[in-house]
Amino acid sequence: MTHALAIDIGGTKIAAALVDPGGAVSHRWTRPTPRTEDPEEVFRTVSRLAAHVLAGAGDTARGAAVGVGSAGPLDPRAGTVSPVNIPAWRAFPLVDRLAESLDRPVVLAGDGHCFALGEHAAGAGTGARALLGVVVSTGVGAGLVLDGMPRFGPSGNAGHLGHAIADPEGEPCACGSRGCVETCSSGPAMVRWARGRGWRPEEPEADAAVLAADARAGDPVALAAFDRAARALAAALLSAAAVVDLDRVVIGGGVARSADVLFGPLRAWFDRLAGLDFLRRVQLAPSTLIGDAGLVGAAALTRLPAPAGAAA
Amino acid sequence: MTHALAIDIGGTKIAAALVDPGGAVSHRWTRPTPRTEDPEEVFRTVSRLAAHVLAGAGDTARGAAVGVGSAGPLDPRAGTVSPVNIPAWRAFPLVDRLAESLDRPVVLAGDGHCFALGEHAAGAGTGARALLGVVVSTGVGAGLVLDGMPRFGPSGNAGHLGHAIADPEGEPCACGSRGCVETCSSGPAMVRWARGRGWRPEEPEADAAVLAADARAGDPVALAAFDRAARALAAALLSAAAVVDLDRVVIGGGVARSADVLFGPLRAWFDRLAGLDFLRRVQLAPSTLIGDAGLVGAAALTRLPAPAGAAA
Repeated sequence: MTHALAIDIGGTKIAAALVDPGGAVSHRWTRPTPRTEDPEEVFRTVSRLAAHVLAGAGDTARGAAVGVGSAGPLDPRAGTVSPVNIPAWRAFPLVDRLAESLDRPVVLAGDGHCFALGEHAAGAGTGARALLGVVVSTGVGAGLVLDGMPRFGPSGNAGHLGHAIADPEGEPCACGSRGCVETCSSGPAMVRWARGRGWRPEEPEADAAVLAADARAGDPVALAAFDRAARALAAALLSAAAVVDLDRVVIGGGVARSADVLFGPLRAWFDRLAGLDFLRRVQLAPSTLIGDAGLVGAAALTRLPAPAGAAA
Repeated sequence: MTHALAIDIGGTKIAAALVDPGGAVSHRWTRPTPRTEDPEEVFRTVSRLAAHVLAGAGDTARGAAVGVGSAGPLDPRAGTVSPVNIPAWRAFPLVDRLAESLDRPVVLAGDGHCFALGEHAAGAGTGARALLGVVVSTGVGAGLVLDGMPRFGPSGNAGHLGHAIADPEGEPCACGSRGCVETCSSGPAMVRWARGRGWRPEEPEADAAVLAADARAGDPVALAAFDRAARALAAALLSAAAVVDLDRVVIGGGVARSADVLFGPLRAWFDRLAGLDFLRRVQLAPSTLIGDAGLVGAAALTRLPAPAGAAA
C-alpha cells in the first residue's frame, strides 16, 4: 500500500499531510480557513497546502491518492461541498478541481466521517462495533463506523449530529432550522451565549479556549455555557444511541480539547439522561488522535474497498 | 420456502398469524396483553395464540419457523425481553420458552425492527435505502433497514426512537430518563397530557382514538395534544435523519391510524425543523401494511441470511 495525501477542511482551519499505510502522519501543513466570499480564495489555500505536502514529501508521495474530509453538507456523488461554516463554498466542485489541480484520484467524505474512521483505525474507537465519532469545534460534526465500515448514507450526509434538534423552540440555526445542537454546543455558540449573559473576557476576540480557561477558573457564566453545551450534546448523543444502538462515542475537535471542563458536565448529563440499560453501557471516550484523526481518516478513505462517496 | 409462524407482542395487544413467503397473512389471532404482575400469564397468552394458529393452519404450518417481534428493550443474544410496557416481563426468557413450548426454531427481534422489515418487504418502505419504520402506539418504537438489511446494533436495541430525548427538562419517563419522545408522542402520554389540561371525554376509559376523534371535531386541547406529540416526533425523526441519513420514514401503529390528525402537524413540524437539503428530502409516509407490518416483518426474520438476534 502506498502513502495517501490527506486533506482536512474545517470552518476554522485547513490541514494537509502525508499519511503512511499504518496511520503515521508526516509533512503536515495547516492554514486558517480564509474568511471570504470568494470560492477561489478558499480553493487556493487548499491546493497550495496540498502542493506544499507533495513538494516536501518528494518520492514518498509517488502514487499517493488524495483523501479529503470536508465540513458538510456535501454531495459525494457530485463531488461538491457546501460547508455551513464556509459560506464562500456552495456546491463547490472540490473533487473535480482538486483532481485537475493535483492530477491524482480524489476521494471525498464528510470531516465527521473521516474523524470517526481515523479514531476507529488507530485511536479511541478501535474495536467498536457501532462508533459515533464526534467533532466539537466551529461546528458539531460526526461520523458513523458500523461493523468496521463508514456509513455515509444514501445522500452521503450521515453524521450531521450538529443539526440534530436539541430544542424545537431554540435559537435559529444557520441551516434554516432552530434549536440544532450546533446552536448550543459549538465553540462560537458557547462564546455567543456566554457574552449574552455578561461574560466579558479581556481579549475582545476571545474564543472557546478562553471560555474554557475562565470555566476552569470558576467563572459561573463560562461554567453555565459548558453545562448548556454538554446538556444539548448529551441529549443528542443519547438520541443517536437510542436509534442506532451505539457501543462507543469518541469526542474530539477544538472544544473537546478542553476535556476537563467539557467531559465532566457531559458525563453527568449523559448519566442523568441514560435510562435504558443499553444506553447506560455506551462508552464515552475522548479522542486520542486529537488533531490527526481527520487526516488519518481521510487517508483511510483512499483504501476503502468500495467507492466511498465521490471519486475523480 | 415454507410459511412462518409470526408473533407480534406489544404493550396493548399480542397477535399471531401464519405468513406465506410472499408476505400474505392468514390464520390471524389477537388478544389484549394481560395487565398482570405474573410473567406466566403473559406467556400463556402468547403460547395459546401460537397454538391456535398452528392448529388452524394444520399441514400448511409444517416446518414453519417462528419469528417474534416484541416490544423492547430485549437482549437478542440471551433471547430475553423486558418490555417497558409489559412490567411482568423482566429478562423473560421468551426464545427458550417458546422453542420449548412449540418445538420449533424461534428468532426474536424488536417490534420496531419487524415493523420496518415488513414495510420494507411489502409496504410503504419498498425501495428505501435507509428506512426508519416507526410505530406510534402504547409506546414509540422503530426499526432501521439499511441497504435492505435490518440494523439491530451490537446490543440488538437499535430503533428505540421512543427513548430519544425530546426535551432534557421534560417529564420523567418509565425508562428512568426524562423528556423521552414516548412521554410526548405515545397514545397514553397524549391522553394523560390532554386530561391534565382539562380534556374530559364522555367515556372514562377513553384512549388516543377518542382523543383523535375529539381533535377531528376541533377540541382545542385534543388538537394541542396531537401538535405536541407531532413536534416531539418530528424533532426526533429529524435528529435520527441527521445522524443516519435516512431517505424514508414510514409511520404506523395505533396512534398513526389517526393519520388525518397526526400527519398534518407532523409534516408541518418536520418542514419547519428541516433545514439542510438532505433533511428536507426525507420522505414521510404512512404505513400501508397497517396492523400486518409487524407480522410480515417477524416472518421475514426467519428468512434472513445471518442469524438475526437470538435463535433457539
